[in-house]
Amino acid sequence: MVQRVHVRGVPAATNAGLDPMGTTAARIVGTNVAKLADFDDTVKIWVHEELVDGRKLTDIINTEHVNVRYLPGHKLPDNVVAVPDAIEAVRDATHIIVVLPHQYIQHLLDTVHGSILPNASAISLIKGIGISDQGMTTMTQLIHRTLAIPVSSLSGANIANEIAEEKYCETTIGCQDPDEAIVWRSLFNTPYFQVNCVADVIGVEFCGALKNVVAVGAGFIDGLHLGNNTKAAIIRIGFLEMRRLAMHIAGGGIQESTFMESCGLADVITTCYGGRNRRLAQEFVQTGKSMPQLEKELLDGQKLQGYLTAGEVHSYIDSCGVTDHFPLFTNIYQICYENKPPHTIFAGLNVDFSRDTKTPSPAL
Amino acid sequence: MVQRVHVRGVPAATNAGLDPMGTTAARIVGTNVAKLADFDDTVKIWVHEELVDGRKLTDIINTEHVNVRYLPGHKLPDNVVAVPDAIEAVRDATHIIVVLPHQYIQHLLDTVHGSILPNASAISLIKGIGISDQGMTTMTQLIHRTLAIPVSSLSGANIANEIAEEKYCETTIGCQDPDEAIVWRSLFNTPYFQVNCVADVIGVEFCGALKNVVAVGAGFIDGLHLGNNTKAAIIRIGFLEMRRLAMHIAGGGIQESTFMESCGLADVITTCYGGRNRRLAQEFVQTGKSMPQLEKELLDGQKLQGYLTAGEVHSYIDSCGVTDHFPLFTNIYQICYENKPPHTIFAGLNVDFSRDTKTPSPAL
Repeated sequence: MVQRVHVRGVPAATNAGLDPMGTTAARIVGTNVAKLADFDDTVKIWVHEELVDGRKLTDIINTEHVNVRYLPGHKLPDNVVAVPDAIEAVRDATHIIVVLPHQYIQHLLDTVHGSILPNASAISLIKGIGISDQGMTTMTQLIHRTLAIPVSSLSGANIANEIAEEKYCETTIGCQDPDEAIVWRSLFNTPYFQVNCVADVIGVEFCGALKNVVAVGAGFIDGLHLGNNTKAAIIRIGFLEMRRLAMHIAGGGIQESTFMESCGLADVITTCYGGRNRRLAQEFVQTGKSMPQLEKELLDGQKLQGYLTAGEVHSYIDSCGVTDHFPLFTNIYQICYENKPPHTIFAGLNVDFSRDTKTPSPAL
Repeated sequence: MVQRVHVRGVPAATNAGLDPMGTTAARIVGTNVAKLADFDDTVKIWVHEELVDGRKLTDIINTEHVNVRYLPGHKLPDNVVAVPDAIEAVRDATHIIVVLPHQYIQHLLDTVHGSILPNASAISLIKGIGISDQGMTTMTQLIHRTLAIPVSSLSGANIANEIAEEKYCETTIGCQDPDEAIVWRSLFNTPYFQVNCVADVIGVEFCGALKNVVAVGAGFIDGLHLGNNTKAAIIRIGFLEMRRLAMHIAGGGIQESTFMESCGLADVITTCYGGRNRRLAQEFVQTGKSMPQLEKELLDGQKLQGYLTAGEVHSYIDSCGVTDHFPLFTNIYQICYENKPPHTIFAGLNVDFSRDTKTPSPAL
């Protein structure tokens, strides 16, 4: 039996600004720590300062308890305190929650490095992964490399606004240390946000990153006005290519069963029916505009994760000479980057995945 | 390497009447046999005779080559011949395709029994399974018991009308004999209808039957106006309860990997987003009417498969004393049959499925 760990800490959700998930996480964790004896009551969140109608966003959050810019309409508990200084947010924190678009992460780490407690630990909610022909770097690896503290991961079928509306969902925490897993679970678990813990930090991150490529494929299907059968086929094949790719890159470092958790199966489904990766891919087919153009027009110039990851994935599988084993990822790449027509997504998809698991079954 | 089997046969799709899938299958098989040297060109389909605007349905099909009653708008190839007599349809057939609502199957089998070739084989496209406290009987077992010929199964993410529109999809054929699997694949496979064969007849059938229970759960979520996160959670848990239940009933007789084929993962997704099980369950929540009442009003008195199967599943797991291991199936049953309110679907869903596979991973 695992012993309950006694921690007195200050959970800090960083960068509640740019992403509604940061504020959503702070809302959950703030509500939970107020009831937990083992934590300080205050949750400091770093908010990238900006002016909203002439007022500082941090001031609005701290007086009206709503992040009017990134999670309007959802009250935060009073114990969530916004600070514009990242160093102030993490100082004295034993538990640091990292949420921001992954292109900003290294700068943040360089800023706070040297200001964190030596016994702190972190959890990453960042979607995205660095894959290149040199291999891959996950966000937890990047954070660990700079901060030299234990880093866990959290990912799931978690569209932020739906969580804020307290609609039932699940999430997955990847954490190597069983004691720490209990602590992270106590910070995040609520009746409407059900946490499952697995001892597979990287597997959880792979799921969160690769599902966006599948969602681009699903968006193409919607853009082509095909039906439920077709979309389900693309989701199925995409899910199995995700698992195959993660196993190819990380081998024994990833557990097959992680793909059946919320971060895997459920998140692929959510992302292929909702979410902006699907939506932009649909626009891509229907308007004939390029992805960079759509990013500019519809995402305020932000990068579309699935498009970016499709490129990184292709660079990796191409350098390994295994594109034949990933026909869907290859087709999605060629449609996004090489002007192949969207209906070529179906080329060569009849792949046998039945031998991918550790307990292969004799397919014919 | 498997040898090509030389067969000269008459594929017969039975009962193209009641279900659009019968006519859809006949359309595919008819087109394929016309190109295959090893088969007779004619595909006889048994059509339950009825009058449409004063004309016999079989006459309409054989002159206009459209099943105006059950698959309007989709031309059949000329070599598909409708016959009103089931015995005539199966006589001289080496390959018999069985498609009809499962409550009519025993009567059909009793009718044709004694009129089939001794070397015939059959494939079942029927969704449904008989589960009771005595155990379970699949449709292929039922057919085999009466006709004493080899019986395969076909199931997948296959909404019939979308297939008839030749939108890309996949299907799964379960067939124990590798030679026969090649024959069945050659009859059904097309560029838009991709067939995967597995040596797991019963696993394919379990998937096809149990997914309807999950779809009832998904319909409740839609009726409650919850979002993508919630629906994905229900699909994930439902999928894992399907796998757990099939393993519990059939044990080593089923392959885990079958659940990752089109008949498993993809069909659950399709059925939870399209399909009438989902739709009626949504109506159930929104109107407060009972399931039998909705069947009468919306299904012309036909039975809703998911509702029926939810009852059979409950009777089985209750008699085994394992309802605790199937909280979602149990909640769906209680909502359908015992007047529990729909939001109780979330009660006790935090089950650990990570030890269900043959290669368990250490969850925390």
